[in-house]
Amino acid sequence: MGKVVLISIACGTVALAAGLLIGHFGISSGPSWVKDVAKDVEESFVEKFMSEIDNIRIQENLKELTKVPHLATTAGDEQTARFILERWQDPQNGLDQAWTEEFMVYLSFPDRSNLNKVTVVSPLDAVLHTAREKEKTYTSDQDDPDVVQPYAAYSPAGHPKGKLVYANQGKPTDYERLNQTVDLRGTIAITRYGGAGRGAKAINAAPYGVIGVLVYTDPLDINDGLMSDSNETYPHSWYLPPSGVERGSFKTHYGDPLTPYLAAKEETYRIPTENITGIPPIPIQPIGFEDAYRLICELGGDEAPPEWQGAFNCSYNYGGPGFKPTSVFANSDVKLDIFNHGKLKNSSNVMGVIRGSVEPDRYIIYGNHRDSWVHGAIDPSSGTAVMMEVTRVLGRMVKQGKWRPRRSIIFGSWGAEEFGLIGSAEYTEQYFTKLSERTVAYINVDIAVFANDTFRASGMPSLQSVIFKATKQVDAPGLESMSVYDNWFQYSNRVSPAHGPIPKMGYLSGAGSDYAAFVHYLGITSLDMSYTYDKNKTKARIYPAYHTAYDTFDYASRFIDPGFVSHQAIAKTSGNILVRLADSLVLPLNSSDYAETLESYLNTAVNLYQNQLQMRNISMEPLKRAVLTFRSASAQLDRLILDSDLANETPLKVRRINDQLMLLDRAFLDPLAFPHKYAFRHLIWASSSAGQPTFPGLADAYANADSSGQSSDWDKVHHHLSVLSQAIEGAANTLADVI
Amino acid sequence: MGKVVLISIACGTVALAAGLLIGHFGISSGPSWVKDVAKDVEESFVEKFMSEIDNIRIQENLKELTKVPHLATTAGDEQTARFILERWQDPQNGLDQAWTEEFMVYLSFPDRSNLNKVTVVSPLDAVLHTAREKEKTYTSDQDDPDVVQPYAAYSPAGHPKGKLVYANQGKPTDYERLNQTVDLRGTIAITRYGGAGRGAKAINAAPYGVIGVLVYTDPLDINDGLMSDSNETYPHSWYLPPSGVERGSFKTHYGDPLTPYLAAKEETYRIPTENITGIPPIPIQPIGFEDAYRLICELGGDEAPPEWQGAFNCSYNYGGPGFKPTSVFANSDVKLDIFNHGKLKNSSNVMGVIRGSVEPDRYIIYGNHRDSWVHGAIDPSSGTAVMMEVTRVLGRMVKQGKWRPRRSIIFGSWGAEEFGLIGSAEYTEQYFTKLSERTVAYINVDIAVFANDTFRASGMPSLQSVIFKATKQVDAPGLESMSVYDNWFQYSNRVSPAHGPIPKMGYLSGAGSDYAAFVHYLGITSLDMSYTYDKNKTKARIYPAYHTAYDTFDYASRFIDPGFVSHQAIAKTSGNILVRLADSLVLPLNSSDYAETLESYLNTAVNLYQNQLQMRNISMEPLKRAVLTFRSASAQLDRLILDSDLANETPLKVRRINDQLMLLDRAFLDPLAFPHKYAFRHLIWASSSAGQPTFPGLADAYANADSSGQSSDWDKVHHHLSVLSQAIEGAANTLADVI
Repeated sequence: MGKVVLISIACGTVALAAGLLIGHFGISSGPSWVKDVAKDVEESFVEKFMSEIDNIRIQENLKELTKVPHLATTAGDEQTARFILERWQDPQNGLDQAWTEEFMVYLSFPDRSNLNKVTVVSPLDAVLHTAREKEKTYTSDQDDPDVVQPYAAYSPAGHPKGKLVYANQGKPTDYERLNQTVDLRGTIAITRYGGAGRGAKAINAAPYGVIGVLVYTDPLDINDGLMSDSNETYPHSWYLPPSGVERGSFKTHYGDPLTPYLAAKEETYRIPTENITGIPPIPIQPIGFEDAYRLICELGGDEAPPEWQGAFNCSYNYGGPGFKPTSVFANSDVKLDIFNHGKLKNSSNVMGVIRGSVEPDRYIIYGNHRDSWVHGAIDPSSGTAVMMEVTRVLGRMVKQGKWRPRRSIIFGSWGAEEFGLIGSAEYTEQYFTKLSERTVAYINVDIAVFANDTFRASGMPSLQSVIFKATKQVDAPGLESMSVYDNWFQYSNRVSPAHGPIPKMGYLSGAGSDYAAFVHYLGITSLDMSYTYDKNKTKARIYPAYHTAYDTFDYASRFIDPGFVSHQAIAKTSGNILVRLADSLVLPLNSSDYAETLESYLNTAVNLYQNQLQMRNISMEPLKRAVLTFRSASAQLDRLILDSDLANETPLKVRRINDQLMLLDRAFLDPLAFPHKYAFRHLIWASSSAGQPTFPGLADAYANADSSGQSSDWDKVHHHLSVLSQAIEGAANTLADVI
Repeated sequence: MGKVVLISIACGTVALAAGLLIGHFGISSGPSWVKDVAKDVEESFVEKFMSEIDNIRIQENLKELTKVPHLATTAGDEQTARFILERWQDPQNGLDQAWTEEFMVYLSFPDRSNLNKVTVVSPLDAVLHTAREKEKTYTSDQDDPDVVQPYAAYSPAGHPKGKLVYANQGKPTDYERLNQTVDLRGTIAITRYGGAGRGAKAINAAPYGVIGVLVYTDPLDINDGLMSDSNETYPHSWYLPPSGVERGSFKTHYGDPLTPYLAAKEETYRIPTENITGIPPIPIQPIGFEDAYRLICELGGDEAPPEWQGAFNCSYNYGGPGFKPTSVFANSDVKLDIFNHGKLKNSSNVMGVIRGSVEPDRYIIYGNHRDSWVHGAIDPSSGTAVMMEVTRVLGRMVKQGKWRPRRSIIFGSWGAEEFGLIGSAEYTEQYFTKLSERTVAYINVDIAVFANDTFRASGMPSLQSVIFKATKQVDAPGLESMSVYDNWFQYSNRVSPAHGPIPKMGYLSGAGSDYAAFVHYLGITSLDMSYTYDKNKTKARIYPAYHTAYDTFDYASRFIDPGFVSHQAIAKTSGNILVRLADSLVLPLNSSDYAETLESYLNTAVNLYQNQLQMRNISMEPLKRAVLTFRSASAQLDRLILDSDLANETPLKVRRINDQLMLLDRAFLDPLAFPHKYAFRHLIWASSSAGQPTFPGLADAYANADSSGQSSDWDKVHHHLSVLSQAIEGAANTLADVI
């Protein structure tokens, strides 16, 4: 009996122990969701994603996307939208959901049956020269009847005629200088691209009495001086042919011009068209350098200063006004016949979604515009071709049940970007609150590949670490055993006080692509990236076929990225970052890297402004304190993250920290700080005419006060200092311990 | 052996089963936090909290708080601040943490050594009458040297002298009417309180050439006509003695006047004092009805219309201008000698915190101002006495380790409210982003008890259900077996389409207390509550001692709430709501109740405006659609909450829903919608001169267009309709499924 008891006890003990173990670990360690909420990004998934990104498929995407010109709201644009929508709705490789959203927006077009004209007209009204109305044909692409005539969108129609003058880049200082030797009243000014925004070239001119403006791309600025299409320019190289013309929007503000701050729905209130601000008050037309050469080399008057000279083999003169007395054009006028007209058109955004599993109410948005000026192989279809390869790989994993991101991913193919970032701006206006509250980050990949030399990224400094992580995991295209990161570092670098020598990121202080509304209006942490050129190899201000009829599949595949390996590198990098933002337990956003930028801004501001401000009894101490407070709060948050075992603590703790990281940029918004800059609300990244890498509102206010000398303008500097200090303190408050 | 095996198996099976059970449920069902994050509010705790709220302690709090006058920033105010701080830092009954925060704010005071004077002066400069400079003494309280002379804060200093006229309530229509029979240039206008804001009485007067204004409280409006202090008014009743004067801030905008949108720190930029807007442009002074009687009953000119007549036993005439020829004051002027001066002063907020256990980054804020005009027994100390009893009971539970709320609770004792909600406004300016992102609700209890007849609550409709829940659990003071809810229903009710007959809540569309910055600037769901009078018993526009030297402990304990049982009911109710907001798993905020208000607003708007708008081709359909979308999104959210087993699902799901509820009001903010209303950004609750229970911006824009008839003003109506529709659609988007 003793034995039986012993055996029973032994059996019982073993069984009890087994039961305890199975019960505790085997059956369940708490509710089923405990593991899910603690899951972090899986490195093996990131690798698998990258390995499936296929350069040939990107090439095929691009071929499909560039079949026809797809100017915003045209049939070609709609065809492209359908193509994207079908892909995203594909049952095997598509997203959870995809749809289109329409906005009724105000665009500007030339008249197909009445082309814009630029002529040289003799005093007896003989037409001595007519500028080319369309670009020269090298491939059948340029023969497509839907290639839009080169024009300046939002230029008013009109028929100004006057003596020609050369106004360099059309900057305020250019007209000021020109006006010192030439009476500009009644003249037509020819300007070259660069230095000032497109619309600004006309806006700056009008106060001097200029009645019409021409703009062209000087071979100096785009072709490293080359001009001949017999052997130098496309189709022999990537350089711009003589007849190539950069089209563009000549509107200064972004978004639909008739519905400021409102999504442009059918019944939305529209301002009268005559109340649109920030567009050319006088007609303006872009022409090729072939025609510009004819005009500029015949100009009379004094020789313009050296920095105004371009690559033409003649002296760039101011203009008499008008042509040299010895010219065949002597005494002739230049006449513009502009037939542009505004039109309300329906523009679509194509939207697609992968629903998040754990935090569906957190969004990572990845977008690019769809519309182009002509075929837009590089701008924007390189980015779209990349995006569609990213959505194919991720979509397939989702459809196969192999993966679902922790957070939701939203893809956007924006419409009418070329007319002023309209589709993305309307989207942010319509969904303002929802996007403000829930968006972790916006990734913009517009032109994915400018050239295949090196990586370039601009964005909020908090994204630096995840960009570095991703670029270290991608091979630099065409380079044996070198990462995108290392290649990037070779081309562009800086010494960080915290990290030592690192690649140099840019900032998103302009409104050059669809990130603008996300950055400046919503205050969402954003990123824009591409592969780009070696600035030692070319001085081109952008790839030469930009916004011309030569931006075609042929051009892209022969001269920009043969083999599409740089496209592939961008797809891998942007997708890698996307997956990390979507899947990481702790958001890969670093506030201490933000602090470093604020400190650098502060140093610049102190160096530039402190002496004069002190003399005016305006203290920079509150700003210094604010930056210090921000630094220590970000260090505290870093420490909290490091010291926490977040995978094993309540998921509300990691959510709390992630909310702090996600919302950081929102703290810098001030809707009243820049009353004269439409939809610019971000105190750190707003555009600034001062062009200093420092606080933009402070720089502008200081420059203004320094030039006017008025005490009310110095008050504005003081006021902005208070606004800025309070915002940075406020941001620091959001990083500090939550209560 | 078979037996041994059987026994062993039996023992083993039993032990295994036991082990499984213990292992699964006993040792741990997952991580320790799983239970914490699912915890809901405990009804037993709510009951315990309420049972410990002690009326005698509230009475003692009030006695302590009203020992000395505590006008903002005076020694009495600082003493009161220290008292509160010490209580909140008490090791036994205090909060987790308490501290003070100072702002340097611009206040306005009379001159102690040069009292303001109102005199009747004969043509030969003889002083025929001098208005009383201080109120008459009935208790020693009034003898305190720190009782501030009655004055109009922010009235300019000055010495206007002119013929007296009677301008009723000083509304624009009053001056317009008066001006039709009397030349107002160079006159002094006497007005009665009510109908228009304090400052407005002077602001409206100035354009007519009026040079000084008097204001008094007519016995009709405050005393149900009674006037004699020998047996009718205080100390015999709650009525205002003849010499009693309502002080007040005569500033229109809220917050520190020199630092709009900026926290008033020492180095903050301050606008020049001459740029302050919304303050009286001419001197104004309040007087008692005893003096007003002497002046008004002597006035010459035509008899004013019936609705201008007050309770005096004489005809209220317009004034000749000036007095009757038969009067002892014939041909005399009235002269104001005002010596007010502005001053930068340090004002403190006392802050206290109970840290949340599960979601410390979610705040429930409970606040009241601390400063008074004199002893301020009712305004504001009744609310402070209540708040301190709430903090004592909750603080003790926290210190004893018996309770810690799920979310954080912040208590605020605001400074300088009487000068224009300054302490709370500066607080929201300094912590704008943090508070916007994390605050669930703000509870304001300023005057806790106006009278002990019935409950009154104003706030966002989403709070209705939790207010109902709490008021049903509190006994109506002094009534056997009747709840605060049932008593409230008897006094004020409506029929809700969804709920049937229910008590009627008010809205927070004004800026009458410290909720203003939370509601209008931050868009935080807010609540203001009190016990108040039976409007059938009295026509007093407010309790008669309001802002006078008679608002003392004696007055409060004898005439407002003997036994302090209404104070107790407010402490129980506000604390009950506070605990529910802090502890509930799902936030007790209901978006469908919000939808009901939007529908009611819409019905009113359609009835009032649609015909005329249709004639002008302005469609109300987008607004109708927006309200419908909001309704269906809120129904969907309700269903989601009902259908979910939130205590057993991932805590991120309940957090997501709670974020939707918490942030709902933020969706209605538009910082650009009301450019002329300082810090009013909430499209649904902004103040409106139209006074309709409908969308305020729409009502104002419509009234403006209807009166001007200009098409640009109708455009503004259309524009606001688009702004409003987009905001309501945007709010609906935040309630709909999160992706």
